[in-house]
Amino acid sequence: MNKNRLEAFSDGVLAIIITIMVLEIKIPHGSDWLALKPLIPIFISYGLSFAYIGIYWGNHHHMLQSVRQVTSKMILANLNLLFWLSMVPFATGWMGENEFKSNPMALYGIILFLSGASYSILQKSVERNAHEIESLKLAYKFMNQKGKISTIAYLASIPLAYLEPYISFSIYIIVAIMWLVPDKNIEKALKAKD
Amino acid sequence: MNKNRLEAFSDGVLAIIITIMVLEIKIPHGSDWLALKPLIPIFISYGLSFAYIGIYWGNHHHMLQSVRQVTSKMILANLNLLFWLSMVPFATGWMGENEFKSNPMALYGIILFLSGASYSILQKSVERNAHEIESLKLAYKFMNQKGKISTIAYLASIPLAYLEPYISFSIYIIVAIMWLVPDKNIEKALKAKD
Amino acid sequence: MNKNRLEAFSDGVLAIIITIMVLEIKIPHGSDWLALKPLIPIFISYGLSFAYIGIYWGNHHHMLQSVRQVTSKMILANLNLLFWLSMVPFATGWMGENEFKSNPMALYGIILFLSGASYSILQKSVERNAHEIESLKLAYKFMNQKGKISTIAYLASIPLAYLEPYISFSIYIIVAIMWLVPDKNIEKALKAKD
Amino acid sequence: MNKNRLEAFSDGVLAIIITIMVLEIKIPHGSDWLALKPLIPIFISYGLSFAYIGIYWGNHHHMLQSVRQVTSKMILANLNLLFWLSMVPFATGWMGENEFKSNPMALYGIILFLSGASYSILQKSVERNAHEIESLKLAYKFMNQKGKISTIAYLASIPLAYLEPYISFSIYIIVAIMWLVPDKNIEKALKAKD
Repeated sequence: MNKNRLEAFSDGVLAIIITIMVLEIKIPHGSDWLALKPLIPIFISYGLSFAYIGIYWGNHHHMLQSVRQVTSKMILANLNLLFWLSMVPFATGWMGENEFKSNPMALYGIILFLSGASYSILQKSVERNAHEIESLKLAYKFMNQKGKISTIAYLASIPLAYLEPYISFSIYIIVAIMWLVPDKNIEKALKAKD
Repeated sequence: MNKNRLEAFSDGVLAIIITIMVLEIKIPHGSDWLALKPLIPIFISYGLSFAYIGIYWGNHHHMLQSVRQVTSKMILANLNLLFWLSMVPFATGWMGENEFKSNPMALYGIILFLSGASYSILQKSVERNAHEIESLKLAYKFMNQKGKISTIAYLASIPLAYLEPYISFSIYIIVAIMWLVPDKNIEKALKAKD
Repeated sequence: MNKNRLEAFSDGVLAIIITIMVLEIKIPHGSDWLALKPLIPIFISYGLSFAYIGIYWGNHHHMLQSVRQVTSKMILANLNLLFWLSMVPFATGWMGENEFKSNPMALYGIILFLSGASYSILQKSVERNAHEIESLKLAYKFMNQKGKISTIAYLASIPLAYLEPYISFSIYIIVAIMWLVPDKNIEKALKAKD
Repeated sequence: MNKNRLEAFSDGVLAIIITIMVLEIKIPHGSDWLALKPLIPIFISYGLSFAYIGIYWGNHHHMLQSVRQVTSKMILANLNLLFWLSMVPFATGWMGENEFKSNPMALYGIILFLSGASYSILQKSVERNAHEIESLKLAYKFMNQKGKISTIAYLASIPLAYLEPYISFSIYIIVAIMWLVPDKNIEKALKAKD
């Protein structure tokens, strides 16, 4: 089984997840600017989740570069990852609808944690089938480090949501920024490949 | 007609089917954990259907590996399969909405049976156009066996839903697991191809 | 501009059009079979439109086979076609919601007619850029004939919807079947290409 | 990182954005033609936004032709563009729902402006990585000119929406037509490439 269709299917699912979240921003009936006010937390949640799904798409792409043959285990691990990511729109909606209360904030952390864990499982099964390229191994090492930091951050933000939801929220934003800022180490390692 | 676009279109439709089901998990207004309680059966149904669509996507991919030219009959059989699979979100929603009552449970079995039968029709038309690869024939043989077991299981679960819905539900879960666990025979047969 | 991305974008839009129609089949709250009864006309309309979008996808694929370079005019004509096809879910929903009354039945015919006309415009611009393959020209000739019959049938069914909606409905079904049944002439002409 | 998956993901997101807007055209319950009357502004808004997303897709495609390697900055700039374009369905819906009042009309201009600015950022990062092809540089020059005119037009239409919304609306339509009419200069420059 070659990887093209795995990529195409994942791209499709991720593109739909990232886009259907916008359906949650219900169009208000009035044309006042005030009519948009209750949508602000929903809009912010959408922005955050858009960033996370975008990051996953980018990393997913990087990860599959070193793979040629796709195994049944990879397909399973990939479906598992997509399943948890498909929960992001729901967690996002609950968070935005309730203006960042503790429970929805904790659930968002739980979904991010489960997605992150699912990603690690997929990464393990990819690495086992793609050990040959030295520079990619280096890039993976840097990404694994970031992955571990993220996992700890998600886990910490679950109880912290009950102390003060905005601490968790700040953690989610910081982790997203950490991934969004281009990483010189990973860039260099990936460039060495060519 | 080459198969790339048939695959791309099928991937697109399957990716949308698997993802729009998440729109059925309506976001509750309260931020209590209790507000999520009525969503539990809907969430479980979603997980089951996600697994089934994922399995169909994987098998569909395997099946088309031995095809080079796509005939009009294959296109028709493929559209027929996608049509019945597109009914899965509805059957899933009805099952989850009614917390696994007999009628929705039976309908879910009927849709799985019709999807399975449509898949067999597509497979027949594929096999007629791709008889040359010996190892794939072997892989198909193992998959056909599983397909027959599934068909019998779906058929049995339709009347059993009226005896006790959870028997049917257990059957759906067991069949899904049977397909999800990587099959050594199929793996070996497919590997021999390369 | 090569045609791959035109195909990918069209496949994406068609896959979404064909699938979001299923969102119109609202899940009823009761678990009685009777609860599904009002959905029967919606389900039938969905099946018909699924067939039509599937047919357009298949023909679109055939048509683009002879094209290598995509012109700006083709892109415009293709966007125009996708626009009218994207109206099919609305027309389908209106028809199903009102159990095949005259006005919705006529609107469905209007949308089918506009889609068909848009397809002809695209086909003209494709033919101008792909005159070299003799066998495809023959296949196009047969498809053009069918296209003309369809156009006349759609036009006729608009006023006929006010005489008796089911006459129009029968016409839509007959035209769909005419396209779905594999055409020996087209098959032969396309096969001669290889 | 090669550009295929960037294109595929963008195509997917754009295809979904262009299609889910149709979900905003809610199906009326009556079968009277009058029941469709309140949908007219929604339908017109949909047509306009369909044109804009279609134009972005076409330009996006042209722009990526000269790129071989995709950098992290491009991925970020592309995600940023897709984010603002994903706001188009919301702005469209608000505009249609309120029959072209000042506020929604201004918001539509703001979203178009932000999308246009995001596109320029992406274009800058693309040009930095694809300076070699002379004819494409020429095509880009013509597209940049159009881009600047559009930006000024969007900016002007934001305050003008408070003078008279239909002035802004006319500007949006004129800009769309300016992009839709095939540009001889760009066509020639792109053709010179082959």
